[in-house]
This record gives sequence, structure tokens and C-alpha cells, in this order.
Amino acid sequence: MVFGNVMVGQSGGPTAVINSSLAGVFQTARDSGCKKIYGMVNGIEGLYYGNYVDVSDYIKTNLDIELLKRTPASFLGTCRYKLPCVDSNAEVYEKIFETLKKLDIKYFFYIGGNDSMDTIMKLSHYAENIGSDIRFIGIPKTIDNDLDMTDHTPGYGSAAKYIATAIKEIICDANTYITDSITVVEIMGRNAGWLTAASSLSKCEDCEGPDLIYLPERTFDHDAFLNKVNEIKKRKKVVTIAVSEGVKMKDGRYVCEANKRNTVTDSFGHKLLGGTAMYLSDFLMENTGIKSRGIVFSTLQRCASHMVSRCDISEAYMAGADAVVSALDGETGKMIVFNRVSNTPYSIATGLINIDKIANKEKCVPDSMINSDGIGVTKEFYDYARPLIIGELPPFIVDGLPRHLRLQDKKFE
Amino acid sequence: MVFGNVMVGQSGGPTAVINSSLAGVFQTARDSGCKKIYGMVNGIEGLYYGNYVDVSDYIKTNLDIELLKRTPASFLGTCRYKLPCVDSNAEVYEKIFETLKKLDIKYFFYIGGNDSMDTIMKLSHYAENIGSDIRFIGIPKTIDNDLDMTDHTPGYGSAAKYIATAIKEIICDANTYITDSITVVEIMGRNAGWLTAASSLSKCEDCEGPDLIYLPERTFDHDAFLNKVNEIKKRKKVVTIAVSEGVKMKDGRYVCEANKRNTVTDSFGHKLLGGTAMYLSDFLMENTGIKSRGIVFSTLQRCASHMVSRCDISEAYMAGADAVVSALDGETGKMIVFNRVSNTPYSIATGLINIDKIANKEKCVPDSMINSDGIGVTKEFYDYARPLIIGELPPFIVDGLPRHLRLQDKKFE
Repeated sequence: MVFGNVMVGQSGGPTAVINSSLAGVFQTARDSGCKKIYGMVNGIEGLYYGNYVDVSDYIKTNLDIELLKRTPASFLGTCRYKLPCVDSNAEVYEKIFETLKKLDIKYFFYIGGNDSMDTIMKLSHYAENIGSDIRFIGIPKTIDNDLDMTDHTPGYGSAAKYIATAIKEIICDANTYITDSITVVEIMGRNAGWLTAASSLSKCEDCEGPDLIYLPERTFDHDAFLNKVNEIKKRKKVVTIAVSEGVKMKDGRYVCEANKRNTVTDSFGHKLLGGTAMYLSDFLMENTGIKSRGIVFSTLQRCASHMVSRCDISEAYMAGADAVVSALDGETGKMIVFNRVSNTPYSIATGLINIDKIANKEKCVPDSMINSDGIGVTKEFYDYARPLIIGELPPFIVDGLPRHLRLQDKKFE
Repeated sequence: MVFGNVMVGQSGGPTAVINSSLAGVFQTARDSGCKKIYGMVNGIEGLYYGNYVDVSDYIKTNLDIELLKRTPASFLGTCRYKLPCVDSNAEVYEKIFETLKKLDIKYFFYIGGNDSMDTIMKLSHYAENIGSDIRFIGIPKTIDNDLDMTDHTPGYGSAAKYIATAIKEIICDANTYITDSITVVEIMGRNAGWLTAASSLSKCEDCEGPDLIYLPERTFDHDAFLNKVNEIKKRKKVVTIAVSEGVKMKDGRYVCEANKRNTVTDSFGHKLLGGTAMYLSDFLMENTGIKSRGIVFSTLQRCASHMVSRCDISEAYMAGADAVVSALDGETGKMIVFNRVSNTPYSIATGLINIDKIANKEKCVPDSMINSDGIGVTKEFYDYARPLIIGELPPFIVDGLPRHLRLQDKKFE
């Protein structure tokens, strides 16, 4: 059977497995008989400027597909471009649809988070309005795990595995010293604490895990924080604290806003965060006299291809593959979601949800997963998150380092 | 054949493979017929206070040995204790030797860096002076690779592999965006730039590597730095800079001393460094207007058991094993060194060097490995360092995370 042409793009922040979804789209579309598979270079923003590639020029063999799955960040490049309202700027839509028409695109896939689903929503509405038969399907992707209506998002499991592993190693390191110490680890997550909560997974038979976990779902109070640390110091020489970059004080300001650096915003108007760990570490050092260290995982937590979760990378592929199957089935204006069929044994099934129900909505960590003190997680969180970090998929190693597939590599040749 | 009792300790900063040397000592001593194998808890400082364990209480099976090899940081705990001069404080020595006599110790092994070799030197001199027949052998360990008289040190290869891998992933991440960006990565290394130089290893077929590398072996100049960055910006949208925490300005101050935080010193009188990446990132953002990010690898680079070099972990074991063989042969007051037999194929042989020649000496990156501009490395460095990051030894994974062996775990039971 022969199907029409495909356009696929990636958007938002990188993850370690976003390219596994791209591999799922490519391989499934190719094997289903889609004629051409185009990739937007730098997402919808690139497409608007006419930047796209024929993906099969870059992915020629099944080895390439396996290498793509093991490549972090966005192979096709990404963007943080928010489509304007069609009423205020129809020209953007006209130009994009002109390109899609020129390339005879029938199926449009966009791999991304909240903001990217806004793109799928707007494009599918526009298509409906102009009577276009192009089908639009969103493929979830975000380390933040903050997309609504889905059990979890591809990208979260690998970031969670990296965070839990690194925290475990940091605790191991700190415990080797005679001296007392405090370590404050800053983890990504603006409004949703899923990633910071994942630090709790480091608690297992050979590690006590972080002593305190501060999520943006709870208000941060300096006095209560200091009291808790002092209380723990009475029984432990090493204190480990996981804190979300997005924790806020009672007055609504981010804790890190005490630092003058944080005045920059991105194109979605989000404040750029950072400096929380260093600030809180200094705060504790001053108030307890104990040597304190701030550690920031920064981009390492989202691009660590050397420590991915096999569960995550497989599910990311599945999300891409099922998006293609759905579009070929005639679906449009929807996003792939995961429904948890069972926890023991862990089992997941994909589904489809109307994109209007998802776009621009953020799912925070529910109360039932946060302990009553607001400084840790409940068993419900462990049971939810543990399966997502299970399994490994080692990178392909060349000359001692993980090998990646890069679109830009043509430049280096 | 039956040999006397062993005392082994670990000292200084953790590495990902320091326990592989301990495994080498333990397994070789046990299999050679040493009666008891004791471990100092928290190095010589712990021993002074009478803290030691019977290692065989914790390592009972060969599976335990394999797990120990895969455990980062110091299984026995560490210290940063510098032995006083015997003339000024003989009591410390008397107390330590009293404990050694009580336990009928014949062989004493200390796994550590510069400061630890000072300990071996002082103890072996003291033993000679009092006519003790205890044999003292140092086993090199430091991610800093700054020990003299040895081709390299166990711990360096794994830290180098982690650094090169993480830089590669960070560059991959930064290249996915449309926007221009600068990333400044801060890497450990006070006076020796070996670790920062290892960032260059990320340059390979699929990665251009860092654009600029600043080692503490060269004076840092703000104007020249800014000029270089501006020059690179003309041809590249993404600039990556690797900088040692120990880079100094012409006036002798550390670059990070511009930050008020850095006024603390450790027990050896070393200033605690940090903040260089953030400071330089802010400096570039102000002076170029381009979004800049500072990333600090912090302790992650020394305790990443999930990304060790097989070459390194095997050599660390070999250093421990050969130390035992040498001591049983009657050697004392010496340290195990590595001599490079051949580079293609890579081959290393252990040797012994008089400890007096090594203690308290730092080996910096030689001029021949630094490029003429002082902002990168030469082919000689690549050829030297590449073999050290080759091969992997995957951790034992339990519930999705690397499992470690911990002395402290008895506390949790």
C-alpha cells in the first residue's frame, strides 16, 4: 500500500529519547509505504522559513535508526516558537501550509511538550477551517512530565534515571568524608516537581536517598527549611537536599530570584531560572556553619544519552510509531497518550486524546504523591515512577565515547 | 604460604575507581595468604583514632569484589589529614604504630594522591627510624592526574571519559537550537589542567569539541578571552568553552576569586574554588549580549560509576594488586607507577618509585601538550589521553540504578 508524504518535527527542550520517537515515526512511516518523509529543521520555526530535509538522506540503514535512537537532544533541531493567533497573523499559517502543499504532505507529526501541542492544536484547527486534509498528530515529549491526560511523557524516565543515579553517586561521595557536609542539588522543573521528586528514587537498599525534597508544588519557607536541616544534622553527618529550580516563596517570587542574574525571559515569556542551589547552599553555610555545596544538574539531566531508561526509550519509539499508525487510520488533531494498564507487572498502552484537552495545560505532582510535611514523596510516587527508570540501552561506543547521529555533521565533512 | 597482616586505607578526594585498587589489594593479599586484611576507616585520620575494620567482614564473595570495583568514592571512607612533622608531634606516630603493632600489621597500603604519598613517606621514614619491619607502599589515585613520575594515575581515565562524554552531550544539546549560545563548562583541577584538557577528547567524527580550553598552566586574560569568543562567534552559532576551576589571572588571583564566596580553605590550606563558569558566563553575556550558560561538573566528574573507563578500572586494580606483590617481595617506602610501554597498541607496565621522589610534587600539563595560543591541546595530548578512556565496565544495575557496596550500610540495616 502507498501512503502520502510525511512531515515530522521536534520542538522545545531536548531529551535523551526524543530521537527515539523520531525513529518510531520514520521507520513506521517508511515501512507503511509513505512516499517521502520530510523533517522540519528547527521545528515549526524552521519550516516557516522553508528549512526542511528529506530524512531518508540522513537515515539510510537500520543501523542509522539504532544510532538515532541513542542520540540525545533533537536530531532535526528544535525551536521555542509559539504560533501567533490566526486572527492576528494569518500570513504565518498561509506560508506554512503553502510549503506543506508544495511538498504534498498528508501527515504532520510534531514531537514536543506543552508549547508544541499548542502548535498542533492551532495547525489542526487551521486545516479544518481551510478544508485541508492534512492530518496532525502530536507526540508527547518532555523531561518535565507535565503534560496532562497521559500517565507520563517520554523523556521523563531517562531524566529521572539520570537524576536518581547522580544523586546516589553524590551521596556515596559525600559519605566518604569524616567532615559534616550539606549538599543542595538543583533539579529542573519550573512549575511541576516530577523531576525533583525523582531524586527520591535513589533511596534503595544501598542508599538513604535525599533527606529533604522541595517541589514547586509547595511554598518554600526559609525558617522551616533551616529548622529541618538543623533537625537532620543532629542525627546525620551528611545532609542531601533536592530542590526544584522552580521553588517559590510565599510572596510568589522564585527562591532563585534573590540572585540578580535571573531577569531574563525566553520567547514564551518564561523567566530563566537558576542559582537556587548555590543560593540555598550559601544560606545554609551561613546559618549552620557547616560546609555546604550546591550542585546544578543543568542540561546534563536532559541529554545524558549514556544513562537512558530502556523503558523510556522503547516507549518514546512506540509513541512515534503509534502516531503514524493513527494518522494513517485517519486521526487528526490528537496527541498520543500513555495509559497505565497495570503496575505489577508494569504495562502501558497508547491512546489518543483530543489535542484541545492537552495544549497549554500543566500537570503538577498531585497531593497524594507529596508527603504531609511537603518535604518528600509518598509510596504512591515510588510505585508510579520506579517502573519508568527500569532497563538500560547502552550507547554505541566509538573511541571510548557514545556515538551520536547529527544532522549538522555534513558541515564537518 | 602464609604472610602477615595487612592494613589498607584510602585518602583524598574520591574517584570512580579507587575501590578497584582496594579490590586489587584485598583479593591479591587474600589469595597470597595474608592472614588478616584490615581497612582504616577514613584513612590515616581514622586509624589515629583507632577506627578500622576487618575488610573480610564486608567482602565475603567474589561477587562482593566485583561490586566493590563498581562502587565510586572511597569504600573505607577518606580523610584530608596531613601528618605533622615527627619532630613537632611524635605522639601521632607513636599512636599509629601502637595500633599497627597491636594488630600485628606487616604490610601497609595507602591509596591516594599527592598528600597521601606524603603520609606514606613520613610513615616509612618513621618505621625506618624506629626499626619497624612494616612495609609501606603507596598506590596512586587521583582524578587530577598530577602525580609525578607516573605516566598517569588511576582515576584520571574515568573522569576524563565522563568529562568528554558530558561535553559531547552538552554540545549536542546546544546545537539543536536556532539561537546563538555560549556554554562555559567548569572542570576540576587546581594547578594541573589534565581534566580540563580531557574535554578535548569529545572532538571526534560526530562532534567538534570545545572551541576554547583554558588550563591553569596558562595565565587567563579577560580581553584576550573576549576577543577569542567574538572571533569564534563570527563563524559559529554555538560556542563551547572548557575552563579549569584553577585558572588564574596575571595578578595571581584565581578567576573565581572575583566571587566573594571563595574565601574558605581546606585543612591543607588549599583555597576552595568554584564559581568560575558562572562568573565567566555572566562576563560573556554582558559583553557579547549572547545567551550564556555556566555548567559545573562538580563532584559528578569524580564519582560517576555509571561511566567508567575499563582501561582505568583495570589499571586501578592492577596498581593495588602489584602493590601487594611488591610489599610481599620486601619493598617499602615506594609507590606503584605506570610506565607506558607502547602507545599503538596501548600497553602499560607497573613499576616502583622511591616515595621521596613523588610526595608533594605536582605534575602539570607540559608545554608540548598545550597549543601555541594556550587555548587548546596538541596532538600529543590526544595520543596520550585517548587510550585511557577506552572500554566500559557497566555497573551492576538493581531496580534501574547502579548498585554500590557501602561500609555504612550496616547502619541502615
